Amino acid sequence: MPRFFMAGTNFKGGMAVIRGRDAEHVRVLRLRPGEDLIICDAQGTDYKCRLVSAEPDQVEAEVLEVVKCPAEPSVAVTVLCGLPKGDRTDYIIQKCVEAGASEIAFFNCERCVARPETPEKKLERWQRIAEEAAKQSGRGIIPAVSWAGEFADALNIANQKELKLFLYETGEREGLDSVLEANRSAKSVALITGPEGGFAPFEADLARIVGLHVCSMGERILRCETAPVVAVTAVMYATGNLS
Amino acid sequence: MPRFFMAGTNFKGGMAVIRGRDAEHVRVLRLRPGEDLIICDAQGTDYKCRLVSAEPDQVEAEVLEVVKCPAEPSVAVTVLCGLPKGDRTDYIIQKCVEAGASEIAFFNCERCVARPETPEKKLERWQRIAEEAAKQSGRGIIPAVSWAGEFADALNIANQKELKLFLYETGEREGLDSVLEANRSAKSVALITGPEGGFAPFEADLARIVGLHVCSMGERILRCETAPVVAVTAVMYATGNLS
Repeated sequence: MPRFFMAGTNFKGGMAVIRGRDAEHVRVLRLRPGEDLIICDAQGTDYKCRLVSAEPDQVEAEVLEVVKCPAEPSVAVTVLCGLPKGDRTDYIIQKCVEAGASEIAFFNCERCVARPETPEKKLERWQRIAEEAAKQSGRGIIPAVSWAGEFADALNIANQKELKLFLYETGEREGLDSVLEANRSAKSVALITGPEGGFAPFEADLARIVGLHVCSMGERILRCETAPVVAVTAVMYATGNLS
Repeated sequence: MPRFFMAGTNFKGGMAVIRGRDAEHVRVLRLRPGEDLIICDAQGTDYKCRLVSAEPDQVEAEVLEVVKCPAEPSVAVTVLCGLPKGDRTDYIIQKCVEAGASEIAFFNCERCVARPETPEKKLERWQRIAEEAAKQSGRGIIPAVSWAGEFADALNIANQKELKLFLYETGEREGLDSVLEANRSAKSVALITGPEGGFAPFEADLARIVGLHVCSMGERILRCETAPVVAVTAVMYATGNLS
């Protein structure tokens, strides 16, 4: 059944009314009245609909069933990454959205090589990558991509979550698996990962002091664009969202 | 401590003898007699050594300690992928090696768009990517990359492993997590993933008939280059190799 991701759809009185580019999209696919489609509102809900009319500027469909989007994980994962160089941001966004992250933010820290004066300029492109990945993977939301600011800001964002993990490649750490096993019912998880050069020891100390779990993901050194995807996958696995 | 990945090192009588390009490498790093280094033999063993002499053409070091490379997982994962288009192969190789795969092979199947006449030509480049990723992530081996042939050949390779998983995005499937939880002590695992268009139903039927676990990784549709990395990570997590 064709699935549309339409944040702008108007659901009213058991009907879905689609206008503009989205309406054009339905028309291009040559769907005819009587055919079924799924419209996702980009807020986690899928509307199973039957097409009533399809004009170039307006499409109307009857809502048959309203369900929670089955692709949305039961846990909201916020990925916080030290800003990497070049297009590694794009890769992190695309893969983390596919893997199930709900929110992605980048921040500046001690060993960041990339220090854009106005990372805000990139936000539009980053958000577009998240939207494309969300559509492609059948997500029920468009994960927000944002600029978190400095390292301390990232810690503050993380601290608002139920489970807060700081992935670090050296020193005294807890195993990611044991922390996750002990928190399988967590509903919100923050994952902090570093830039190319990793975190400075004082940053790991700070994370520990403010109450984050400083975690290891094993002895293999993961690239800065690989670590977030591996970490999100581990959370999905541990919380029963990979089956 | 500097770590070298030197398949060609000659270990004899408690000494490591390094020649050629590897010797040059030690020299370039300006290591001096008396300094310690780790030499990995690319077969899973790390030799902790103390430099005795460093000439341009030959380096000799005393072996102090021999240990199993701590980055090598306890499970050997063979990744078998339907050949994707373009540089997605490169991505799969790099990320799967980082994530902990021991072996990667590509095969041809019903929905492969890319059908190189001689994929063997690409083998050298693929192997180089695996070697670079192995060095970078501190692996103890260089995972082999190969061309498996046709779909039936991939099934045959998978069938030689203890646990054989076929990742499929529709129909009747087992949850990847429940299969892995029931096989946490598996020492060899095969993971089969599809090309861009996924597998044809008859291919999934074949996999089931020959005894593979047809598995789901959740409702999110993963790109063909993302699925192998997510699957390897799940295996690492389940077998205690992500802590």
